[in-house]
Amino acid sequence: MRFTALLAGVIAAAPLRAQLPATLTLMPVPASMTVTDARLRIDSTLAVGITGYRDPRLERGITRAVARLEGRLGTPLARVYTGNAGATIVIRVAGRGFAVPDLDEDESYQLSVNDRQATLTAATVVGALRGLETLLQLQDADASGLFFQGAEIRDAPRFRWRGLLLDVSRHFEPVEVIKRTLDGMAMVKMNVFHWHLSDDQGFRVQSLKYPRLQEFGSDSTFYTQDEIRDVVAYAADRGIRVIPEFDVPGHSSSWFPGYPELASGPGPFQIERTWGVFVPTMDPTKESTYKFLDGFVGEIGALFPDRYWHIGGDEVNPTAWRQDSSIQQWMRKHHIASEAALQTAFNKRLFEILGKHGKTPVGWDEIFQPDLPRAAVIQSWRSSDALAASAKAGFQGILSAPYYIDHQKTTAEFYAADPLPANTDLTAQQQQLVLGGEACMWGEYITPQTVDSRIWPRLAAIAERFWSPASVNDADDMYRRLAVTSRRLEELGLRHGDHTARMVRRVAGDSVPLFESLLDFARPLDFGGSGPNQLYPHTRLIDAAVADPPATWDMAGVARRAIAGNATAVATLRTQFDRMTGFESRLAGLPAPAEAEAAPVAILLSRLGRVGNEALNFTLWKTAPNATWIAGADSVVAEAQPRRPVGTLRPVGVDAVRLLVAAAQALPSPRRTP
Amino acid sequence: MRFTALLAGVIAAAPLRAQLPATLTLMPVPASMTVTDARLRIDSTLAVGITGYRDPRLERGITRAVARLEGRLGTPLARVYTGNAGATIVIRVAGRGFAVPDLDEDESYQLSVNDRQATLTAATVVGALRGLETLLQLQDADASGLFFQGAEIRDAPRFRWRGLLLDVSRHFEPVEVIKRTLDGMAMVKMNVFHWHLSDDQGFRVQSLKYPRLQEFGSDSTFYTQDEIRDVVAYAADRGIRVIPEFDVPGHSSSWFPGYPELASGPGPFQIERTWGVFVPTMDPTKESTYKFLDGFVGEIGALFPDRYWHIGGDEVNPTAWRQDSSIQQWMRKHHIASEAALQTAFNKRLFEILGKHGKTPVGWDEIFQPDLPRAAVIQSWRSSDALAASAKAGFQGILSAPYYIDHQKTTAEFYAADPLPANTDLTAQQQQLVLGGEACMWGEYITPQTVDSRIWPRLAAIAERFWSPASVNDADDMYRRLAVTSRRLEELGLRHGDHTARMVRRVAGDSVPLFESLLDFARPLDFGGSGPNQLYPHTRLIDAAVADPPATWDMAGVARRAIAGNATAVATLRTQFDRMTGFESRLAGLPAPAEAEAAPVAILLSRLGRVGNEALNFTLWKTAPNATWIAGADSVVAEAQPRRPVGTLRPVGVDAVRLLVAAAQALPSPRRTP
Repeated sequence: MRFTALLAGVIAAAPLRAQLPATLTLMPVPASMTVTDARLRIDSTLAVGITGYRDPRLERGITRAVARLEGRLGTPLARVYTGNAGATIVIRVAGRGFAVPDLDEDESYQLSVNDRQATLTAATVVGALRGLETLLQLQDADASGLFFQGAEIRDAPRFRWRGLLLDVSRHFEPVEVIKRTLDGMAMVKMNVFHWHLSDDQGFRVQSLKYPRLQEFGSDSTFYTQDEIRDVVAYAADRGIRVIPEFDVPGHSSSWFPGYPELASGPGPFQIERTWGVFVPTMDPTKESTYKFLDGFVGEIGALFPDRYWHIGGDEVNPTAWRQDSSIQQWMRKHHIASEAALQTAFNKRLFEILGKHGKTPVGWDEIFQPDLPRAAVIQSWRSSDALAASAKAGFQGILSAPYYIDHQKTTAEFYAADPLPANTDLTAQQQQLVLGGEACMWGEYITPQTVDSRIWPRLAAIAERFWSPASVNDADDMYRRLAVTSRRLEELGLRHGDHTARMVRRVAGDSVPLFESLLDFARPLDFGGSGPNQLYPHTRLIDAAVADPPATWDMAGVARRAIAGNATAVATLRTQFDRMTGFESRLAGLPAPAEAEAAPVAILLSRLGRVGNEALNFTLWKTAPNATWIAGADSVVAEAQPRRPVGTLRPVGVDAVRLLVAAAQALPSPRRTP
Repeated sequence: MRFTALLAGVIAAAPLRAQLPATLTLMPVPASMTVTDARLRIDSTLAVGITGYRDPRLERGITRAVARLEGRLGTPLARVYTGNAGATIVIRVAGRGFAVPDLDEDESYQLSVNDRQATLTAATVVGALRGLETLLQLQDADASGLFFQGAEIRDAPRFRWRGLLLDVSRHFEPVEVIKRTLDGMAMVKMNVFHWHLSDDQGFRVQSLKYPRLQEFGSDSTFYTQDEIRDVVAYAADRGIRVIPEFDVPGHSSSWFPGYPELASGPGPFQIERTWGVFVPTMDPTKESTYKFLDGFVGEIGALFPDRYWHIGGDEVNPTAWRQDSSIQQWMRKHHIASEAALQTAFNKRLFEILGKHGKTPVGWDEIFQPDLPRAAVIQSWRSSDALAASAKAGFQGILSAPYYIDHQKTTAEFYAADPLPANTDLTAQQQQLVLGGEACMWGEYITPQTVDSRIWPRLAAIAERFWSPASVNDADDMYRRLAVTSRRLEELGLRHGDHTARMVRRVAGDSVPLFESLLDFARPLDFGGSGPNQLYPHTRLIDAAVADPPATWDMAGVARRAIAGNATAVATLRTQFDRMTGFESRLAGLPAPAEAEAAPVAILLSRLGRVGNEALNFTLWKTAPNATWIAGADSVVAEAQPRRPVGTLRPVGVDAVRLLVAAAQALPSPRRTP
């Protein structure tokens, strides 16, 4: 069975239409859709007709979609795209759209699927690419084979800017990782790849004009200019903009080993190996700094056709400027009263350079200063309030604060955050200035082996938040669709699906099943990686664990349903609590380093499982527990979520147990009944 | 726990020395080894001292080994290699060895590990690389952490030529696949990568002199010359020779779309899409053919520093030569009586060209002809007898016939075949001419997504066959070590370990666990891939299945132990037969295309499981079954292994059930007792 077995089971068992979820397994959910009971059969006779505008980008996009269908079908299809309006799939595009993907691209499309034909209509090629992804998500299977579910869809994004930041400075990610990330983004209709290419820990782009940047700042891991052109073209083929970030004047230590003259202070400088905010900072008082940046933007800007250029601008440590007497002298001479004002002066010069090369600046919150050019875009990493403040001042902005996916939060937590919350006090006009959002994948704790598991499948839910109407916010339905979406993402070569099993096999020897099972119930602490510096291999259990293990998705929601009397939910929790209860004894005595890492969370899980089972009993018996039990249960819940957690892993299911304990506690005590 | 949990458990439970298997978890097993109870602790203080010859290749090899240790330890180690003879690991190499890896390279090494130090001594850098792999396989873990097991090892290969052929013509494999394959080969001490670069279905090398080769013969999937240099250097760093094969004069259809003048007959020519032996064949009667080949070998030979060049020479279809009147005329004029003689004439000219460019020919059996130069090496794909015949004629040879890993045979079957069987009638001198062997990974049914699962872990056992003494031939012990070796290979990025699960997730939707479980008991038919031509996506259950599923390794061996009264073996079979018995009903009614592919084997497995359980009962009860039962059981076994199997999968466990039925049948009948 393919993808939607749950769905297919329902279809087989009952009349079709009433049973189909309104959102099918689509992610993101379209702006408007009606599901019908039509089934358009997919077999080797499938033909594609292009009846409107056509170009190689459109044809390549269709070929990728057809190849994925072939993979699901197990057999080849004719890859000949006729102009036949009677073909199985007819694609009618009005025109090319922008020459390179643009903020103002029209991404809307209409898709109509009946028993005989699928018709996809769009104003631009990018719109058609978005529609093709939807069509692929309409594919399902029954005993007769594969089909597209009948539907009438009119779709367009809620926000124009739907991005992912990937930090390749703290840890480098090879081109193959970038490409499969772009494939995943395209599947869930994201349109901005924000490439964080330099920071204190590494400079990742080849400059021909300033080759010492990569020679002294990259540990020989950087992208050649050919590779960058290749990635930019690959992204453009998928309707994705690529915005490079070169963070200045702070977070720039890696520029200075090759070009110490750019820095404030005498040096020597080196690539930073640990994490944080460092002293080395560009010298904004020297003309030579701007001459260098002018040359740099001139050279590197040509590699990135997007009209935006991200200057970073965050977390400037004032120490270097304060310690440098010539900088302090310069500030006095130019009546610059503070280091913040000095950064503003730096930005002003930088914006002139960007303007000269046709680039509009994007920067983090800290660039929101009086002299900021009106065209600039502010990326809020601090809070939604910061975003609102800049919108009120008339600046365009994008929200990242609630979407830091290096934080090991659950999918539901990210999904709940809206760039424009229902209670926003922004005017309609100000709301227009909120362009969208970006998820941020910071690189301190990721390697090419772990990065997929840190991005996916959680990013798919964030992508939906940016694309779909605000009213699409049911976490249960999101998780139901995420299970299917996660497998579909694997079709693209993404490796999140086997992450934990693969990593555990490397550390757990013949105890693989036990540790795999444990990581169904244990999540990484904090940022989900081992090691305080860049040299760690990231091969421990914390690296094998994932933030939101699919086996225990939304246990709190299940607990709520169990308390409400849902028998399936009760059975699910029983099984999970039984598994949790067993970990402590199963781990005991294993002569293995992994055991030491696992022991603290195993103990917590065993206690939580026991309390969870007991609370479930009280609820089912409708009998209140006594005060001693309640005190004990509260203490187990409290120790499972301490202020300073022990070890590298934290237990799943704390919220579920807390809910059950509270429900048990709220039961009428038998002693009080007359 | 790392890797050897079984072993570590034994260590924890009982005095050490007596319990350690003589072969530990080493693969290949060294020529001579003594295990001690010493444990050399591995922690962050680990230092490496190089006290003899040193060069960048040696240092890179040590760095790779240290990085793997870091991955196991979870923390970084100092990567500074001193000259200190008191370091934790001391490496003493006498000299560089050959400038490029050579057939005559000295790969021997000695390794001594005690409580304080590991000492690795070798004549060459390649010998040291081999020894480092052994050292990494001596790593184990206990409650105190990681350690190297104490041992005294003297090791050298039994055969000089230990190779893998990879066919990248039928399906292209990108450089990343090639590199991780080379990593795996290095781990199990193989030393020849035979790169089958052209065949009827694709020409995979960039020629600057004859660019129409790749432009018209490759579907744009070929290796650039930079990529080839990169792969050759990568292999050399691991002590692996790279031997290119350009198959001529047959199997050469892909040369002709770009250069039809090379072919016999008028054309037109195209890339072949199906599998087999095709008519298009080079024209051996034109001088221009040899001029072309001279230019080609001159250009491409420079990319491959190895002194051998593989000319193919197999399966020449005489049709094109017979149909071409000018060729027939030429043959008459030159008194060439047969097409076989014409191929010999072609080879003779080709060998002259090779000699001019400093290359010695290797070719398949068919080149064994009267005029073959004495230096040539014959690769026997037909049989061990063919190899023996050429050895008797004084030619060096390598054996491939029993090592075709595209055949979906079990690891034990490959492991049992020896290049020099114990009953060989070759003299000692003739035996010296048998240089070794090569496993052949033909490319008809593999893609970049499946190739690892088709090569690994089976190749590790073949590598042992080529390296270790002939006396190392216990299949039980091989499987015990293979389980650990397979996980160690994953450390290198090879993807066989999660193959079935990953592939099944793409075709089985929410029924993933059922189909995964099924593929513990079902093996691919024939060559293990779906599709009669090059265009198939290879995404079906047959592609997800593997030839020797680890969950059911060596069921026949387990059955033999069960019959002998081993209780563990009985329990193992019970569990397996119970699982087998359930498949038919569990699959019934699933509305999925995968169900159709799975149904035939599920039915066979269910019947086999039932008969297996019943046979086990008779054996345990020591009661003979009646004739009706025996007839039924025989028929179940027979239908499970039919001449023309149904579907794409065949059941595991047929041999085990057959053994049990025979054992039951041999029991004394209660009726016959007085």
